[in-house]
Formats: sequence, structure tokens, C-alpha cells
Amino acid sequence: MRVALIGYGNVGKAFARLLQVKQSTFPFRIVAIHTARHGTAYDSNGLGLAPPWGPAAASVEAFLDEAQPEVAIEITTLNPESGEPAIAHIRSAFARNIHVITANKGPIAHAYSSLNAEARRRQVEFRFESTVMDGTPIFSNVRNNLPGVKILGFRGVLNSTSKVVLGALQRGLTLEEGIREAQRMGVAEADPWYDIDGWDSAAKAAALANVLMQAQTNPQEVERRGLRDIDPQEPARLARAGKTIQLVSSAEYTNGSVRLQVSPEILPNTDLLASVAGTSNLLLLYTDLMGTIGTLSIDPGVEQTAYGLFSDLVDIARSV
Amino acid sequence: MRVALIGYGNVGKAFARLLQVKQSTFPFRIVAIHTARHGTAYDSNGLGLAPPWGPAAASVEAFLDEAQPEVAIEITTLNPESGEPAIAHIRSAFARNIHVITANKGPIAHAYSSLNAEARRRQVEFRFESTVMDGTPIFSNVRNNLPGVKILGFRGVLNSTSKVVLGALQRGLTLEEGIREAQRMGVAEADPWYDIDGWDSAAKAAALANVLMQAQTNPQEVERRGLRDIDPQEPARLARAGKTIQLVSSAEYTNGSVRLQVSPEILPNTDLLASVAGTSNLLLLYTDLMGTIGTLSIDPGVEQTAYGLFSDLVDIARSV
Repeated sequence: MRVALIGYGNVGKAFARLLQVKQSTFPFRIVAIHTARHGTAYDSNGLGLAPPWGPAAASVEAFLDEAQPEVAIEITTLNPESGEPAIAHIRSAFARNIHVITANKGPIAHAYSSLNAEARRRQVEFRFESTVMDGTPIFSNVRNNLPGVKILGFRGVLNSTSKVVLGALQRGLTLEEGIREAQRMGVAEADPWYDIDGWDSAAKAAALANVLMQAQTNPQEVERRGLRDIDPQEPARLARAGKTIQLVSSAEYTNGSVRLQVSPEILPNTDLLASVAGTSNLLLLYTDLMGTIGTLSIDPGVEQTAYGLFSDLVDIARSV
Repeated sequence: MRVALIGYGNVGKAFARLLQVKQSTFPFRIVAIHTARHGTAYDSNGLGLAPPWGPAAASVEAFLDEAQPEVAIEITTLNPESGEPAIAHIRSAFARNIHVITANKGPIAHAYSSLNAEARRRQVEFRFESTVMDGTPIFSNVRNNLPGVKILGFRGVLNSTSKVVLGALQRGLTLEEGIREAQRMGVAEADPWYDIDGWDSAAKAAALANVLMQAQTNPQEVERRGLRDIDPQEPARLARAGKTIQLVSSAEYTNGSVRLQVSPEILPNTDLLASVAGTSNLLLLYTDLMGTIGTLSIDPGVEQTAYGLFSDLVDIARSV
């Protein structure tokens, strides 16, 4: 399959390396890469790991028209408040009957229902496994392995930065020191307050609810409390009592609609959601036929996010 | 699809109820059921929940010849030491070009490699999701959602009875009292020592290693220690120190071959494998491309096992 990348940061580079390693068994080809910073590169025979950058295409539309890919992978830097420009890029690809994979949670959190309808109308595939839990199978698990199952709700610890910061508070450090620790570990976003105030957790909750519970919601509709809403001394006090605070994203049906919450919750250290150490994430799905199923990703990183794109690409290749 | 059941205990009945609920969206039909106790029932238009039992077919072969199903579901009572008679039933179905689903771990633990080769030769499908973790997607997760990934090893708490018994020991009860507790809860097998001595955990480890790591092994080859190998007072002592014992199944590559172990391990209460309460199970898969992925099944029961059969059936319907 001929693949075009829109964006080429750390995830894009890890993805290109992965494709090269898997070339003999999965014959996918990156035929074009478009970036704001480096320019644009094309090679219909497949680009290597050092793309020959030329001048930037005039627009993503012009890029796609020139590249003629079967699949576009949207991995630009996101404005998380709006999901743009990723949403516009995805629409441009759909309009050209191109399958789309994205690692950007914004489009799924803000506009999943209309994007999904557009993909169906155009009879193209749309995948986004890396948007929540860094490529660990969640969406594909429900789609491929849980046929006929209804998701009744979920609870999850989905944001690594807030976990690191809460761990620092627990050891008696300040919020700011915790943030610097998360930045040194490379897990904090450019704007750490997006994580700390629960926006990232809210976006992931909205994305999960949109896809798995047909919620047609967005991050703004999530009842949201963040780490600035707790007493910064409390985690250290709770630690002495064998308890911990986690920023929990949750969803449940109430009165026929989906209620979404992000909230710092006090949990005993032996609680499942508390025992996920470091930057690891855990999601519990409540179902009608399969009881409660949990998925863990242990200390995920950019390689996992890149693999999520790869697994989406294989899934599209199998579907078409 | 036309389905025949070999065996009709609690799982079979739950499966029949599930098919009835899902009839409108998943048009599968149970056309025949063979049991040792009740006899045999046939109806090519589909059997209801009260099958009209006739005399038992002379053999499973005669039953399959008469029923002519597309899929046979093997859910007889198992002799766990040998995997028989389930293995023979599965071979009989393959010989008739019938797809097979089983919830019996014996065939996968003892004879996976040769059964899988036979299925390929006959170009029929072979599924067994319910054999480990009661239908929670493990095998299908690797097969469908982790393309190109190599499983490097695993660690799991996979046996509910030993968890209940260890919990009882922790509270100061005896091994025998713990076993009676597990029997009252309905989680212990007919012979509780099969669980207590680690044979069930060993069979699950062998099944996982055979399918996910091409190990060609069997339960006898697993290095196995059970709950009779620990001091029965130790769990209570450890509990006072914030620690717990879990019967852990694990696999790793050493010197090019797969080393399998079942062993009671001392873990801090905050360890992931320790924080899975009650009868819940947890499996951590170590992979080359996706780091460590965990799957949890929370207090699974017969409904989940039945759903695992159903998801296998849908997967076969999609594959053929």
C-alpha cells in the first residue's frame, strides 16, 4: 500500500523505521511526507529514512493530489482545544477517497461522529488506535474481538503526566517540581497544564465515549476536575495511610445519555487503578456480555504509538 | 452458520441462550447437540433451549456425519491430564472438514501444534479463546490486533481457585477451609488439587506458549510448584507485612527455547499481579514492538466462557 504522512515528528520517524524493519513481510511504502518545518518529500518508489526534502507543498490538499496515496497518516502537531488542523486534513483525505489513520486524539474527541459518517459515505477506512493508550489495542479490541458486545461504561487512568506529578506530590514535592520531573522524563506535553488540568484525560474520555458508546460528545462536555483542584499536601498525607490519588476518566449511562467525568479520586494503594505504577495506563471496560475487561499498557512510549499506526495500517490492508 | 455442540453442560446452555438473544443480528443455528448423559438432539431448523433428546449417537463420528454442521463446538468434560476425549473429537471434526471451536484447554495445552497443522491441511478454522481467562480476548487480541508482533514471554495469575484459597490462608484459614470456600463459590474444579497443585496454571501456561510462542510443549514440561509447596501459615504472616503470595504462570525464552514455570511468588500488595482481587485474572504479555501489554478479566464466569465461544464463531464466520 502507498502511504503518505502528514507530519513527521518523533512518532512519524519511529513509524518509518518500523516499516523498514517489517518491509519483507508487510510491503507498505511511504511515498510522500509533508511537514511545515522541513518541506515536502515525494518518491513513488518509497522514501528512505532520510527523505530528500523539497519545497513545502502549497497545502495539504495539493500534497495529497500530488502524492496520490491509498492511505494518509495524520500526525501533525495538534491544537488540542479544537482538534484542528488535523480534522481539516482528515476531511481533505476523505474527499479524495483516501483511507485515514491518525494518532491525534483531537479529531476523535471533537468530531468523531461526523468524520466516521464521512468515511462511510466515501467507503474509506478510518483508524485511530494510537489516540488513547499509545497504540495498545482498545478500539481494535472492541471492533475485532468483542462482536455484539455493548460497552456500558469505563474507568481509566489514561494520562501519564498527571501520574508522574501525583507521584511527586506523594513524595512531598510541589506541583511545579512534579511537572519538571514529567518534562525531564519526556512524558509532559508542550503545555503541561493541558495534562494537569485534566484536559488530556477529558479528550481521551470523549474519544472513547464517541467511538465505543456513540456519545457524540466533546472534551468540553466532560465534568472535569484536575490536579489544581486538590490540596497539594494531600497526596503525601494519603500515602502515609496507604492511599493514593489518581486522575480517573470515567463514563456511565445515566438517564439514557453518557455521563463523562475526569476527577482526582482517592483510592487504596491495593486498588487496581492505583497499582498501575510509573507512566503506565489502565482502562477498565464495563460490558453487557463479557463482564469487566481491563487493558494495561506498561510504560508506553513513542515506539508503541508508532506501532499503533502500523497495526491500523495492517487492519486497513486486511479490510479492503 | 450451522453449529453442532459436543457436550452440553453449563457453558453449552449459556451459549445456547446467548445465540438466542443475538439471533437477529448473528444468524447462527444450533442444528445438533450430543451428550453422554441426555442423548443426542437434531433439528436442521435450529434447536431451542429445550432440545428434544433422542437416543445417543453411536459415536461422535456418527453424530457429526448425521448433523453435518459447518462448525463443531467441543465442550465435553475434560480429562485434563491427557486432553482426551476432546482431542479425538476435534480430529474427527477436522477429518470431516468441519471448523472447530473448543473451550477445553487440554487440546491446546497437549496437542496444539499437530491440531493446528491438521486444521491448515484441511483448510478449516480452529478457535479456542475460552481456554484461558474465560473468553477474555487473548489469542484473538494477538492474532487480530498485534500483527507482526513477537511475544517474548508472559507472566499471569490465571487460576481462580488458587487465588481464593490463598486469600483464605491469608485470613488464617487452613488449605482445606480455603478449598471448601472455592467450592462454595463454584470456582473450584471437580478435583480441587488440579488447581491447588498448579496443574491448571501449567496447562494454561502451556496453551499460551504453544499458540503465542510456538513452544510445542505440554503441561508436564512446565516447572511446577503448587500451594502444597508453601508453608500454610506464610500467607497470613506476609499479609501483616503488606505482601501476598500469588500462583504465577510465566514464560521466557532462554537459550532459544521457552522456559515455562508455575510457582507461588511473594509479591508486595501494590504489585500489579497482587492487586487482582477475588477470582479475577491478569496476564502480562512481553512483546518486541508493543512493550508490555496487560489484559484483565474481572470475576469471570460461565457467561464469559460462553461469550468466548460466540466471539470465536463470529471470527470464523468473518474468516471463511
